[in-house]
Amino acid sequence: MVETVETFDGWYALHDFRTIDWEKWQQASEAQRKSVLDEFHSLASDWKTITNEKQGDQALFSIVGQKADLMFMTLRPTMKDLNKFENKFNKTALAHYMKPAYSYVSIIEKSSYTKPQTDPYEDPAMLSKLFPKIPETEYMCFYPMSKLRGETNNWFTLPKEERGRMMLDHIKTAKPFTEDVKRIITGSIGLDDYEWGVTLFCDDPLQFKKLIYDTRFDEVSAKYGIFGSFYIGNQLPFREVDEYFSV
Amino acid sequence: MVETVETFDGWYALHDFRTIDWEKWQQASEAQRKSVLDEFHSLASDWKTITNEKQGDQALFSIVGQKADLMFMTLRPTMKDLNKFENKFNKTALAHYMKPAYSYVSIIEKSSYTKPQTDPYEDPAMLSKLFPKIPETEYMCFYPMSKLRGETNNWFTLPKEERGRMMLDHIKTAKPFTEDVKRIITGSIGLDDYEWGVTLFCDDPLQFKKLIYDTRFDEVSAKYGIFGSFYIGNQLPFREVDEYFSV
Amino acid sequence: MVETVETFDGWYALHDFRTIDWEKWQQASEAQRKSVLDEFHSLASDWKTITNEKQGDQALFSIVGQKADLMFMTLRPTMKDLNKFENKFNKTALAHYMKPAYSYVSIIEKSSYTKPQTDPYEDPAMLSKLFPKIPETEYMCFYPMSKLRGETNNWFTLPKEERGRMMLDHIKTAKPFTEDVKRIITGSIGLDDYEWGVTLFCDDPLQFKKLIYDTRFDEVSAKYGIFGSFYIGNQLPFREVDEYFSV
Amino acid sequence: MVETVETFDGWYALHDFRTIDWEKWQQASEAQRKSVLDEFHSLASDWKTITNEKQGDQALFSIVGQKADLMFMTLRPTMKDLNKFENKFNKTALAHYMKPAYSYVSIIEKSSYTKPQTDPYEDPAMLSKLFPKIPETEYMCFYPMSKLRGETNNWFTLPKEERGRMMLDHIKTAKPFTEDVKRIITGSIGLDDYEWGVTLFCDDPLQFKKLIYDTRFDEVSAKYGIFGSFYIGNQLPFREVDEYFSV
Amino acid sequence: MVETVETFDGWYALHDFRTIDWEKWQQASEAQRKSVLDEFHSLASDWKTITNEKQGDQALFSIVGQKADLMFMTLRPTMKDLNKFENKFNKTALAHYMKPAYSYVSIIEKSSYTKPQTDPYEDPAMLSKLFPKIPETEYMCFYPMSKLRGETNNWFTLPKEERGRMMLDHIKTAKPFTEDVKRIITGSIGLDDYEWGVTLFCDDPLQFKKLIYDTRFDEVSAKYGIFGSFYIGNQLPFREVDEYFSV
Repeated sequence: MVETVETFDGWYALHDFRTIDWEKWQQASEAQRKSVLDEFHSLASDWKTITNEKQGDQALFSIVGQKADLMFMTLRPTMKDLNKFENKFNKTALAHYMKPAYSYVSIIEKSSYTKPQTDPYEDPAMLSKLFPKIPETEYMCFYPMSKLRGETNNWFTLPKEERGRMMLDHIKTAKPFTEDVKRIITGSIGLDDYEWGVTLFCDDPLQFKKLIYDTRFDEVSAKYGIFGSFYIGNQLPFREVDEYFSV
Repeated sequence: MVETVETFDGWYALHDFRTIDWEKWQQASEAQRKSVLDEFHSLASDWKTITNEKQGDQALFSIVGQKADLMFMTLRPTMKDLNKFENKFNKTALAHYMKPAYSYVSIIEKSSYTKPQTDPYEDPAMLSKLFPKIPETEYMCFYPMSKLRGETNNWFTLPKEERGRMMLDHIKTAKPFTEDVKRIITGSIGLDDYEWGVTLFCDDPLQFKKLIYDTRFDEVSAKYGIFGSFYIGNQLPFREVDEYFSV
Repeated sequence: MVETVETFDGWYALHDFRTIDWEKWQQASEAQRKSVLDEFHSLASDWKTITNEKQGDQALFSIVGQKADLMFMTLRPTMKDLNKFENKFNKTALAHYMKPAYSYVSIIEKSSYTKPQTDPYEDPAMLSKLFPKIPETEYMCFYPMSKLRGETNNWFTLPKEERGRMMLDHIKTAKPFTEDVKRIITGSIGLDDYEWGVTLFCDDPLQFKKLIYDTRFDEVSAKYGIFGSFYIGNQLPFREVDEYFSV
Repeated sequence: MVETVETFDGWYALHDFRTIDWEKWQQASEAQRKSVLDEFHSLASDWKTITNEKQGDQALFSIVGQKADLMFMTLRPTMKDLNKFENKFNKTALAHYMKPAYSYVSIIEKSSYTKPQTDPYEDPAMLSKLFPKIPETEYMCFYPMSKLRGETNNWFTLPKEERGRMMLDHIKTAKPFTEDVKRIITGSIGLDDYEWGVTLFCDDPLQFKKLIYDTRFDEVSAKYGIFGSFYIGNQLPFREVDEYFSV
Repeated sequence: MVETVETFDGWYALHDFRTIDWEKWQQASEAQRKSVLDEFHSLASDWKTITNEKQGDQALFSIVGQKADLMFMTLRPTMKDLNKFENKFNKTALAHYMKPAYSYVSIIEKSSYTKPQTDPYEDPAMLSKLFPKIPETEYMCFYPMSKLRGETNNWFTLPKEERGRMMLDHIKTAKPFTEDVKRIITGSIGLDDYEWGVTLFCDDPLQFKKLIYDTRFDEVSAKYGIFGSFYIGNQLPFREVDEYFSV
């Protein structure tokens, strides 16, 4: 076995994409629509409590293009909590005005090619990364990815030093974006169809393109990166949900 | 022909994934819902008898994410029994509140690169693996897989010793997880679209990720593993089904 | 042009897979269901005549898993006959309780890398293979397949002798299964999306897995075989159709 | 830039595949069905005029298998004419008993690796190929195709002479079929997802298989041919449409 | 990191494809249809204002073939504007007679392998390319594309000079089409599933085929071009929308 990299794991994450049936929504009576949104806000208020008690977080995004209309990003301490979250939402009236579009199951993951000098689970900086609040930026970009296991180029048969060197180069390229573009990296080997999920947050969506364009020339991306679909959305604070659904 | 490996086969297995139409379910009257669940429990009670008579086993899981809501895992002595199982379930009222999402047909399979010293079908340890009870852990992870037949790397043209050596390495990597993560390996060449099915059971879903991450660096996985979709779920004991469906 | 192999062709074949809408079926009145099945049996009786007059054959299978519920296998002298078969069936009431799931169009094909010593179309053994009765075994396995045209490994640029040698090896591996597993090989270049269809018949479905597992190590399969989806089913004699549909 | 081949273009072509909703059709009253077919025949009569005025042609085929029930092949002088054709048909009542299944947009194209000695647009033989009547054979076979741009085998980086030599070999292999199998080759680079469309016409569908089988061993097909789905159908003359739809 | 190319970005672009439910449309009353189109024209009039104020542009195309019926191309200063555009349209009555078919999210992008001598954002020629009016040609062709990152041929590991040389060759091949075929190139790395979108405009659709055929032999296309689906359509000016929808 080639030497693996130690990883540290935080909250479980569910990215849940939905498409709205606008016609059905508009055919509902105003009273029905109000009641549907009231039920949603009551649920959202329970979620707020979870955030306040630092037992997770959640945010909502309005996705651009036809891949989906909305994306819920939900962080919770256990997989069972994620399952409860979606089952509860699926039983709300609002969910009946939506169709499933895509979902991704993963867990927040930090890894390091160099040995951490302190216990990561005691390190406040690390803890805030493993159990974060979702950034309140205007835009979000999500994509799942894997590393190539090709017949010539195979990430998983490379020596650890080689992989570490390439990751370091990659980090250098991304450096200029550190302040503007926040990221939550989640691992999904064994949990979903790609190996990692990348969720980026920024107030200027052009920075997503610039960051990913620049890093695409890095050896690790150019030779080993396999990318799934890209989803881009605008933050939709719960307080703006009624306006979003107004007809 | 390259030398094959002897395999021993046990019960046939059906993994059957369904998506619930929650709106339709919630629009049913309370009496209807009760009657639907009563019919289901009556069927489940027949299944219980099958388990008690050691003629198979079955379990239900609540799947996380939108790939499906539920997965039935069913073990039976014959393919005809599996077919009867699904045809019977399809005629229940509960099935009419669900849509098919995915399925996998396979058969429990044990193989060994070294000659077994005793007749496997007389060996109680082997028999309990070929005709197992489904572990009652909190979480389950299922994925189908094949071995690469690439133009350079081709599992099926390798000498048997080479394959045996790689499988041994693989088993060593997985060793530390033996106690925590139970597995049922099923063969599906000729029965379904991948060559094998892997069903893992554990009380901590993070162990699935750790096990599959660690083994992905094994030569057999890194160079030859082709993985289908990953499904992760929470055990849903039949006695909790009513609660799951409560609205 | 690399030297081709002479092929002899028999009846045209249609594999037609359908998924049943059980809810709709169960919502029909008993009288409706009876009338629907009566119409079906009347059609099946016409088919029987075709079989008796040696103008084709047909059989029905209950497919395991969600890929389909039923598969009709139909053999006819002309493509137009196949088209009539499906158009007629599509107009029956029973067809309105089903949705299309998959289909495959091909023609029974025998080929030989060695020159036949007698005119195949005068040879009773060959004729019974080109214009066969569908075996009445308990299980059936169908899959379409092609031969790889890779950048390194390309079946269609190999010399004829090389191909003949590999096919011979393949036949040797399959030899032990000859008695138990009957097969109908159909050609579909120009007729459907893969190059061949393979339909296997056996009373023990485990033999399908063993046969295909053993032959997967043959050079011709390991290096050149591209396999589509595998469908496995139980023979459903027309006289058992009413029982199958009983609710 | 590698040297390209000069091409000459004729009528635009639309292959339009539809699946019939037989249940809906049978639920319509006899009067409705008659009115629907009358409207269709009135449209078909306008099409006939177009053919008579040599401003295009069209034909209808009954497709075998579940990929579609019907295929319209339509030839017109401009892309706008094709668009009008489909928009007009989509507004007929008959179209509401069908669902779209597939379509292909292309333009009749003749190319030559050798310089034509006369102006092709003055050559009656060439003109009859660029602006043809659709052959009234009993069977039709359609498939789209591209040429491989692989990392080793790349059609588009080969010298023109090399490509010309392979095409010549290809033409030789196809020679014996010239009389029996008529073909309309259409180009679709920039118009649809493959690079070419091939529509073959013959009274014996076995000739499609034989032609495509024989030519698959040609270097140009074996190494460079990428084939889409194959659609095979029976000519359905407009005068037989009522019989086709009779219930 | 291999040296990247500087890019300049203009308006965000949404290509939004829809399929019309003609049956539903024809079942609406004449009054309903009039009211639906009136609402659309009122929205289109707001869009016109945006064009007049140089805050974006939009155009509508009637797509040929079954991939879609209509395509909206919309240019706006911010991603949020695009999102508002689609959310607003989705709430109109006209949208309820359509189904989503495909969409593409990107941003107008100009890049140069040579350093621009003046500030591009001060250069009127450049500004008119970054913030253009959509050409009012009769035909439009759209396709997304990426550059190959193969195990042998990898665009993103090539030296910048090499890439620059190939792009220059490419531009030379396209030169003869400059006047006839207008183009809007958009970048979509991080925004959608391919790396670029290409939208071509011309009065003669054959020029699309000729341009893309000729350039397919360029090294950059032949070896590195990965093309998505091609969509071709006729310009549908808003003033002709009523005629398009007339029944």
